[in-house]
Amino acid sequence: MFRGYCINKTGAFLKTQIKGNYVFGEEEAVTAFYETGGFGRPRDGRLQLRFVEAAYLLSRGKIEVLKNGKELNFDEFIQFAALAEDFFELKYIVYKDLKERGYSVQSSATDFRVYPRGGKPGKTAAKSYVFVRSERMPIPFSELTALLNEAQNVRKQFILAVVDEESDITFYDVKRADAVGSFEGGMTAPFPQDAEKKNAAAVLFKERVILNDKATAGLLYNKEFFGKMMDEDRLLLSLPEALYLAENGVLNLYDMDGKELSNDEFSTKAAEIDAEFSKKYTIYKELKEKGFVPKTGFKFGTHFRVYRNFESPAKIPHSEFLLHVVSPEFEFKLPATSGAIRLANSVRKKMIYAADLGSKREYIEFERIKM
Amino acid sequence: MFRGYCINKTGAFLKTQIKGNYVFGEEEAVTAFYETGGFGRPRDGRLQLRFVEAAYLLSRGKIEVLKNGKELNFDEFIQFAALAEDFFELKYIVYKDLKERGYSVQSSATDFRVYPRGGKPGKTAAKSYVFVRSERMPIPFSELTALLNEAQNVRKQFILAVVDEESDITFYDVKRADAVGSFEGGMTAPFPQDAEKKNAAAVLFKERVILNDKATAGLLYNKEFFGKMMDEDRLLLSLPEALYLAENGVLNLYDMDGKELSNDEFSTKAAEIDAEFSKKYTIYKELKEKGFVPKTGFKFGTHFRVYRNFESPAKIPHSEFLLHVVSPEFEFKLPATSGAIRLANSVRKKMIYAADLGSKREYIEFERIKM
Repeated sequence: MFRGYCINKTGAFLKTQIKGNYVFGEEEAVTAFYETGGFGRPRDGRLQLRFVEAAYLLSRGKIEVLKNGKELNFDEFIQFAALAEDFFELKYIVYKDLKERGYSVQSSATDFRVYPRGGKPGKTAAKSYVFVRSERMPIPFSELTALLNEAQNVRKQFILAVVDEESDITFYDVKRADAVGSFEGGMTAPFPQDAEKKNAAAVLFKERVILNDKATAGLLYNKEFFGKMMDEDRLLLSLPEALYLAENGVLNLYDMDGKELSNDEFSTKAAEIDAEFSKKYTIYKELKEKGFVPKTGFKFGTHFRVYRNFESPAKIPHSEFLLHVVSPEFEFKLPATSGAIRLANSVRKKMIYAADLGSKREYIEFERIKM
Repeated sequence: MFRGYCINKTGAFLKTQIKGNYVFGEEEAVTAFYETGGFGRPRDGRLQLRFVEAAYLLSRGKIEVLKNGKELNFDEFIQFAALAEDFFELKYIVYKDLKERGYSVQSSATDFRVYPRGGKPGKTAAKSYVFVRSERMPIPFSELTALLNEAQNVRKQFILAVVDEESDITFYDVKRADAVGSFEGGMTAPFPQDAEKKNAAAVLFKERVILNDKATAGLLYNKEFFGKMMDEDRLLLSLPEALYLAENGVLNLYDMDGKELSNDEFSTKAAEIDAEFSKKYTIYKELKEKGFVPKTGFKFGTHFRVYRNFESPAKIPHSEFLLHVVSPEFEFKLPATSGAIRLANSVRKKMIYAADLGSKREYIEFERIKM
């Protein structure tokens, strides 16, 4: 074991004692570890270390740890700590990683506060709150937004550190989509104004809508990227696109028998075709109102891929983000979330999860980062 | 409408009649369409067209279609066909796309036979069977393998054509992993022989196993890429890795109280930690026996990423494929599958789904292709 540092006059390592949920060192420890390295907290002249901090210092040969007067080696200490403290092993893996990257880290019951490089507790403000989770632990959407609020309220970056079964860590920067600048697109109108109130006739087939009106079809596709041209005369529309245009008087909808469908009748049929239609449509509408151009995200495994701008089919830009709609009761299954974020990031897009909470919609953006 | 081709002496388009589930043309139609373009089938001197074929020819102005003596225009015909035939609109979208790419295509009740460019029915053997599915339609694993068998039995390429809500088509080449060459890795032994029967002690923590035996840890990691080194002395192992090594006498497993665990006791605990442990382990073992190095696929949202070879940690190659384990009752939800395949292809890896059918394991590989 590396024995480079010792402050005790006899040359022995600083002795610490387990007491309750902490490990305590004496005054010398406050100087050696808190003031220098930002470890632990001073309490009544002593140094109060959390188990992850003590394990780390023990692994570096800086302290001895005693339990009821008996010295524990590293393996004994981590087994003790893992039995005594929920999630110890997950937190230790992340703590060790952050320390090895040179950060000052303060540990609390549920998370870590990470200081900017060169900063430390007592001297600088923390930069990030790091929340540690196992890949196996689903995270309810509501819990994620509550943690996000906690970090946002004190202007800290929210980082989710996920430990996988191989004990590797993936770090995600999580924020609301409007955290940096407003969340809006560049389209000045959600549909071409010349198409308004045209009442062009569109037919609902088994799963899609066909608009057989060359002028309106061309306008919708060329100006606002609705649907896909089936041929020169006809436009294929997705269910959300069709309903949106019907609600705005651009289309009248009919079934294949020629019977006109009210918007409610269409919505009902759409929900029979696509069990997720209703929640997808709520978000589709809001994205349109925010000036975005939402299209299907099927190729990416998400509900939508979303463009900020669209000028012409000749020059289709890259979509800016992928968006998946979840219900408020949704729980993130981290392996699937990890794959989704990885794919989005690999094509330089953001990954956003959206939910309708009734009073408002939440748009939560994930980005994988290197610490 | 384009009116370029007509064979009838009067200059009128070839008249065809709807009868039952087909559209029939007379002898001239056989010459004009079957012999030249591979459309339909000759039946008793007449041409028997499926609805998708008739719709396509109608859209190109090559035929007229009559129903009970009354001519239907294109919109009327496709509405009729969509009501009369399941999946007509899905099939039409794919049929039209394949024809526009210049292929000869024969349509049957459930699929398309696609001929190599320049080939056609009656002259050449078909190259591929194309099965059309909507993104909304889950595909049971058992159905997929049955279709795969159908194609494989006649040495045809199996192509899955998925139509999304935007009416775009994504084509997937689906095959068994051992369809081209054997499905095996390059490792000559599943674990270092010098590690056999070492009975090194490893402890099960909450979710992972820590091996505190420097020599064995080093061997396992450096030679066969087991686990991840926690520090110079200790190796972190995933649950499948730990059980595999215990079953092969490399490790003895203990819980945190120091009690030795039998392999069965460990398996039980592992299944409590990870609900999918049992099915993952079955495949993990088989992959090891085939000479692969399977590691976690968490970052990709799959169970495993699999290396064909491993020489040293200094030169870790790219993993060759991602593998996800499913139960035999699994149903592919195509949006998620699409995302998984997209991610794998984007990092130049294959995507394999594996299931334990009892008598054997199935390894089904998906690759997105351009037609």
